Amino acid sequence: MYTDFKPAKDRPAYIQVKDYMKRLITTGALQADQKLPSTRELSASLHVSRNTVLSAYADLEEEGYIYPLKGKGHFVVPTAGGLEQGRNGKDGSRAFKTDWSSRMSEFALTAERYDLMKHGIRAERGVISFTSIAPDEKLFDLQNVKRAFLDRMAIEGNVLLNYGYAKGYKPLIDYLKQYMENKGVDMKGKDILITNGFTEGFGIVLSSLKPVHGRILCENPTHHTAIKNMKMHGFIPTGIEMDPDGINLRELRRALSEGAFDMAYLVPSYHNPTGIVMSHDKRLDAIRLLNEYRVPIIEDGFNEELRYSGSHVAPLIACAGRGDGVVYLGSFSKILFPGLRVGWIVADEELIGYLESVKRAKTIHTSTLDQSLLYQYLHNGNFEKYLKRAKAEYKRKYELAIRCCEKWLPARRLSGDGGLHLFAEFDPPFRTRELLAACAERGVVFTPGDIFYVDGGGQHTMRLGFSRVSDDNIERGIRVIGETAKQLL
Amino acid sequence: MYTDFKPAKDRPAYIQVKDYMKRLITTGALQADQKLPSTRELSASLHVSRNTVLSAYADLEEEGYIYPLKGKGHFVVPTAGGLEQGRNGKDGSRAFKTDWSSRMSEFALTAERYDLMKHGIRAERGVISFTSIAPDEKLFDLQNVKRAFLDRMAIEGNVLLNYGYAKGYKPLIDYLKQYMENKGVDMKGKDILITNGFTEGFGIVLSSLKPVHGRILCENPTHHTAIKNMKMHGFIPTGIEMDPDGINLRELRRALSEGAFDMAYLVPSYHNPTGIVMSHDKRLDAIRLLNEYRVPIIEDGFNEELRYSGSHVAPLIACAGRGDGVVYLGSFSKILFPGLRVGWIVADEELIGYLESVKRAKTIHTSTLDQSLLYQYLHNGNFEKYLKRAKAEYKRKYELAIRCCEKWLPARRLSGDGGLHLFAEFDPPFRTRELLAACAERGVVFTPGDIFYVDGGGQHTMRLGFSRVSDDNIERGIRVIGETAKQLL
Repeated sequence: MYTDFKPAKDRPAYIQVKDYMKRLITTGALQADQKLPSTRELSASLHVSRNTVLSAYADLEEEGYIYPLKGKGHFVVPTAGGLEQGRNGKDGSRAFKTDWSSRMSEFALTAERYDLMKHGIRAERGVISFTSIAPDEKLFDLQNVKRAFLDRMAIEGNVLLNYGYAKGYKPLIDYLKQYMENKGVDMKGKDILITNGFTEGFGIVLSSLKPVHGRILCENPTHHTAIKNMKMHGFIPTGIEMDPDGINLRELRRALSEGAFDMAYLVPSYHNPTGIVMSHDKRLDAIRLLNEYRVPIIEDGFNEELRYSGSHVAPLIACAGRGDGVVYLGSFSKILFPGLRVGWIVADEELIGYLESVKRAKTIHTSTLDQSLLYQYLHNGNFEKYLKRAKAEYKRKYELAIRCCEKWLPARRLSGDGGLHLFAEFDPPFRTRELLAACAERGVVFTPGDIFYVDGGGQHTMRLGFSRVSDDNIERGIRVIGETAKQLL
Repeated sequence: MYTDFKPAKDRPAYIQVKDYMKRLITTGALQADQKLPSTRELSASLHVSRNTVLSAYADLEEEGYIYPLKGKGHFVVPTAGGLEQGRNGKDGSRAFKTDWSSRMSEFALTAERYDLMKHGIRAERGVISFTSIAPDEKLFDLQNVKRAFLDRMAIEGNVLLNYGYAKGYKPLIDYLKQYMENKGVDMKGKDILITNGFTEGFGIVLSSLKPVHGRILCENPTHHTAIKNMKMHGFIPTGIEMDPDGINLRELRRALSEGAFDMAYLVPSYHNPTGIVMSHDKRLDAIRLLNEYRVPIIEDGFNEELRYSGSHVAPLIACAGRGDGVVYLGSFSKILFPGLRVGWIVADEELIGYLESVKRAKTIHTSTLDQSLLYQYLHNGNFEKYLKRAKAEYKRKYELAIRCCEKWLPARRLSGDGGLHLFAEFDPPFRTRELLAACAERGVVFTPGDIFYVDGGGQHTMRLGFSRVSDDNIERGIRVIGETAKQLL
């Protein structure tokens, strides 16, 4: 005993001795009411100072793992051990085995089935991967993040570390109200709820709206995580095809006249996966049409800031004016820091009241640290500076990726008006899954487009995320994809 | 125009000018294709430098809100405005109103109905409030939190700010594995999932386990948020009464023999609201009994660290040894920083695999910043020091509160073996809601116990949270409650 103690250098020694002894106690190596070695003996065995052992024993006693007997030393508390050490140790209960998969709900099974991290494309080291649309972390300005943290801690550190409000951190809410007003949103009668990113926001909305018809309208293709969550919540997504300027209105009208829907989920700017920006006129028409059929719109504004050219187009919720039929889900994850899980919902204040209760029931509130750091970073004006730098970088990659696609890719259609990815369609029956298999052998992977389709289609499509690929690799990778595609054609 | 520009001092002026102009554009004060004032004119009107206006105009152009015409100045982009400015501005769609409450799901309605922040006790300023069981923020050691943040940022700041893993931040998971092993948990065949606190963890479990029988066993009374979430997920909680050493085993056995249950939710240590610690023997018996009926146990370890006296008692998941029938939900919120939303689930690794997919679908992952800060704080050994200081403080308050209750309160039973609250029962038909109304008039509030009961009982009970009440106010407040109770009796 005591020969396997291997302390780490950067952690207090007494804590490591204490933890080591706890392990001996709870695993039964030291048994109920057994005497511990004296502090002198243990310090010799573990090669630590006697003071270290004294501190460790004091803590163990204080935490109720050992008890002292006057003049006799320290002994093991009998209740610290588990079944193995308890009086039931020898019966069969410790071998109790559960068939967990047979107990899983449809909700969990769907989450697992659509889990891209488990069943998606894995990129080995050294492979050129176009699968990610996460920001490039080399662009992050850590200095200003640190400053924002220290600024905010100095102002109200104690408050930040205690419970916050389900609705969100007040200064951030106020900032976002202005931010949305600057985008043209009429905030009168509307309110904001902070969420753990877009995904929680969407889940809150999906679980809060009654599935009367059980159907949701959406663009086809659309955001994979959105499809997953709609299905998990028991909704069937009905996909409407995309034109180069956004959702096909004729198809939308036909679907509305033929069936009833609980809501419409739309990604009007830098749509995932097609990268298309819905035109301003189309936005107004789509709102009018969905209003007519009393179908609320869930607007995903995830990528809105990543415009490299052309005019600013007001989000749907701005286009709707005083109307309360649009629920806007915002996020800075794709442009700022995804590690900070902060998103927000803008909607009618009565609706936000309900969603606030659901948010509280689900996760109490979003990390106040994340919210306050983000607020201070925004307030300090760092977002503006960062956005310029990041956009310059992404724009260069975007234009390079387009040039390379036009040069190498035998695609019938290439789309992407901005953002961090492009979308390519080949002539059917070309299958991008086969292309992917062939490219993967040559060290290049991308996302096959079929995962974004709600109807099993899209087998001739692909998404190319370029945000985390170097210029050299964008050229090399797209050339490989293009050459391989030509061989397969 | 331009007379209502009121810049804040601590934010870059050019951003404020830009935002101000955006507002004029999106609200239609400046109309589509209207010419903007020259930079010279605007700088004079707004009393800012011309360079400030030049920067603002450059940004507005870059962001697509205005366009330049050579030699003629800048003009408003037509697509930046909403319906009011659009061609549909005059039709009825902008007045579109939705009856949101009629569209709410049972899930949302239940969340709202059980929302204590909306329908619970509100403490006005100056009132002595025993309603909270949040930690006292005056105890937080901000210096070490700052150090932990800066340490971690220096090591891998870029990684922390980009996407993390649904399962959690690896160093924190490894730390918690050791932490649970130190409590006697046999981690072989088990795994850990990081969540946004206990509440998300519980929600993940509730939505992942199939409601075959639609019933959950629990202590009665029990944690209010747990009751709310069970009901939101369509489960009916069946409450088992509490003895002074934990759940009544005879009642538990009877319930198991009479009905079928999907799981049991138990709070074995410093139970909320009674403060009772389940004895070691009872833990072993309860596990054996529930194993016998194949009912998985959801163990809420929320308060486990707040032991002031007596022996350490191994958690249920440790008592279960190699058995996989216990799902443990951990959190440091009540003892460390609730503002950091970090909790964890320990369970069988097959189950964790499903829960990981559900976690990813619900919130992608928990804030990496929160997780890494917490990890570094724990690793640096600050938790140990903080816990000693906090426990010394809470123990003093705990003992004071007990003395005051024994002195003043005409209760038939007082419970609370540790933690941040006590629980008192009066002789029925005494109603603590009436007591609360009378006390509130005298400036003291507490939590009426009925909200913790699953069967409409507990009207003669109350919970007293003392963690955020000063010593003086503990004495004064409990005296007022006691005197008022005697008058009502």
